[in-house]
Amino acid sequence: MPADAPPASPFSARGSTADIEHGSAFQPKFDADGLIPAIVTDAAKGGVLMFAWMDAQALALTVETGVGHFYSRSRRKLWKKGEESGNVLRVSELMTDCDQDVVWLKAQVEGDGVACHTGAVSCFYRALPLGGPVSSVRLVPATD
Amino acid sequence: MPADAPPASPFSARGSTADIEHGSAFQPKFDADGLIPAIVTDAAKGGVLMFAWMDAQALALTVETGVGHFYSRSRRKLWKKGEESGNVLRVSELMTDCDQDVVWLKAQVEGDGVACHTGAVSCFYRALPLGGPVSSVRLVPATD
Repeated sequence: MPADAPPASPFSARGSTADIEHGSAFQPKFDADGLIPAIVTDAAKGGVLMFAWMDAQALALTVETGVGHFYSRSRRKLWKKGEESGNVLRVSELMTDCDQDVVWLKAQVEGDGVACHTGAVSCFYRALPLGGPVSSVRLVPATD
Repeated sequence: MPADAPPASPFSARGSTADIEHGSAFQPKFDADGLIPAIVTDAAKGGVLMFAWMDAQALALTVETGVGHFYSRSRRKLWKKGEESGNVLRVSELMTDCDQDVVWLKAQVEGDGVACHTGAVSCFYRALPLGGPVSSVRLVPATD
């Protein structure tokens, strides 16, 4: 985990709540494992493509290069999305939230346009019907 | 935290990778704190409104009622979004991802249509310009 050998963060220290919520300084909050959640949506169509985690290095590389980098919790290392598959994420916009503890990337998937390791365009290819008892829920194909 | 007094989960135990990725059984993965990340997008416009966490109870209530429920990590309790503000999330679709360790809600914000506690429609109201050294990044208003 990043906590074993934390690199020096290139980001600002956290300020007051007012600074964090309304300031222009980027003061991202990383969790106890040194990670921040990253939501990736399709820059053209708008749907959620994937969800992953970034450490400070991955976030800095994403901001500086405009290419999606993450931290693989299973492989415990930096992960340039698409490095093997060719499905690189070309980021057009990067937002953070009120608390600066999440980032949202609008991106185009290069290569064959597939974001999910299963071969699906989006990782979110199954939906849950709503309104019934959760114990009997069965997943169905998502509509989009 | 939920781990202090874990309620019996109404959800199925995790199966094989094939079951998780391709089956119709809903087998959500909660983290060590008993939580799963939840992305909320605007059902009409498609942008990300907020990001929060659910425990098993919040997820079950969301599925069964179609109203967004979460777990407040700061208050350490169930949080029905909009219970005080009136800005309830009416969920129209709920998806899970390949690993079943994230959920995505498409929702309409009732009341005054504001999802963020700061009064912004979306929590993601600031963007980071891309391509420069991260040490000099200044947040700017998001375009959407």
